[in-house]
Amino acid sequence: MAGGLRVVLVGTQHPGNIGSAARAMKTMGLHQLVLVAPERFPDPDAWALAAGAVDVLDAARIVPTLADAVADCQLVLATTARRRSVPMPEFDPRTAAGQLRGEVEAGAAAALVFGRERTGLENEELQLCHGAIRIPANPDYSSLNLAAAVQILAYEWRLSGLAAASGGGPGSEPATALPADDPGAAPDPDDRPASHAELEGFFGHLAALLEQIDFHKGKAPDMVTQRLRRLFLRARPDPRELRILRGILSDTQRQLRSPTGQ
Amino acid sequence: MAGGLRVVLVGTQHPGNIGSAARAMKTMGLHQLVLVAPERFPDPDAWALAAGAVDVLDAARIVPTLADAVADCQLVLATTARRRSVPMPEFDPRTAAGQLRGEVEAGAAAALVFGRERTGLENEELQLCHGAIRIPANPDYSSLNLAAAVQILAYEWRLSGLAAASGGGPGSEPATALPADDPGAAPDPDDRPASHAELEGFFGHLAALLEQIDFHKGKAPDMVTQRLRRLFLRARPDPRELRILRGILSDTQRQLRSPTGQ
Repeated sequence: MAGGLRVVLVGTQHPGNIGSAARAMKTMGLHQLVLVAPERFPDPDAWALAAGAVDVLDAARIVPTLADAVADCQLVLATTARRRSVPMPEFDPRTAAGQLRGEVEAGAAAALVFGRERTGLENEELQLCHGAIRIPANPDYSSLNLAAAVQILAYEWRLSGLAAASGGGPGSEPATALPADDPGAAPDPDDRPASHAELEGFFGHLAALLEQIDFHKGKAPDMVTQRLRRLFLRARPDPRELRILRGILSDTQRQLRSPTGQ
Repeated sequence: MAGGLRVVLVGTQHPGNIGSAARAMKTMGLHQLVLVAPERFPDPDAWALAAGAVDVLDAARIVPTLADAVADCQLVLATTARRRSVPMPEFDPRTAAGQLRGEVEAGAAAALVFGRERTGLENEELQLCHGAIRIPANPDYSSLNLAAAVQILAYEWRLSGLAAASGGGPGSEPATALPADDPGAAPDPDDRPASHAELEGFFGHLAALLEQIDFHKGKAPDMVTQRLRRLFLRARPDPRELRILRGILSDTQRQLRSPTGQ
């Protein structure tokens, strides 16, 4: 899948919601749909509710895990409703749309992730995301239907494009909330945030070293792992920086095997 | 019916859409629903799709004509999709929400009107409205589901209230653009970016380890050091994260002195 914004629905329970989401997407000009382990799909209910957006459904990609869905994405934002135990940067829909627009205009792939109707995203899935989007709903009743949440985000995505096309007006976002590379630097294939797969390679390498130096000392590694992931996702390393970090890990491992100079 | 904003659904064909619209309303804090000559209502489909918004349905008022529904309203805006033959002022959803908010804050009653699923509003009905709202949809496929249109307008209505409450004007943000921890979490002395001195302590420690593992291999360390500093400064670690990073450095150094388990 090339650049652009994709909508990723994780573990959707009701196929009708997939159809309604496809319709909501297309009304706002979005066409890339990825389904992560949907409970029932393909299913006639999905096609019935898609109305004139059956082309979006027909082209939907089905993958087994969220990691597969976002492997090539440089920015992954997830809508979340309930309180999360995974701390992460949080954006309102408008700001999020501006961020995603910025990535996509720069030629990257980005993803807008929606969890299961009842239970949302698992913590391990949230940890694959760079940030969370909170729709500012009624605190006494914040239960948006899945397609309704897709509709709001798709609407803000479309507005962000119209604002960009018109040169930005009142209400348009300067899109600078996430750290960005130096503007004006010479073009360089490494001048981009690392992909999801590159980051996971680094996290795996780091986890291996932590085991090797007995960092966790018998305790569960989850909390430390979460904090480290969060720190590095926030920094959005570029490939060059990841190579330095992995070089440090490799040289450390080499020294642990045959310590010299001590 | 007193002041406030009411949602008026005219001639709705599918009762399920009435239920979904009620749900969309309540998620954004709207409760006044008026149904003009619905084709099938009450109907179990409406209650099934209202989910937790059955109170909105229970309190819905049913009237025979749009004129009855808006008789006491000072501002009546209608969403329209197709080209209208009735010339009238046209607003985008955000501007419309601002207009309606202004009326309601001044104590008046206002109405947001949605036409029939297939055929919209009759010209005589449009003539009862002060203006039309056009949702900026995909020109190639602008067919929003009724509840989806209600959701977008209700969302903009809610945003207009949050902007007013925070003292912001049009285009002001609900203040979540920068990465933040869960709001409402207990105050924590570590919930702040690390100080300059804390960061320098970490950079010094990291430099020492890089020497120890012979990372630079005789080359000048400046370029790598600069890149690493830039990466970590960009992430703005908090003191807790720095403690984890320094713990990793310390444990690595300890293992280098007396490697075990290799």
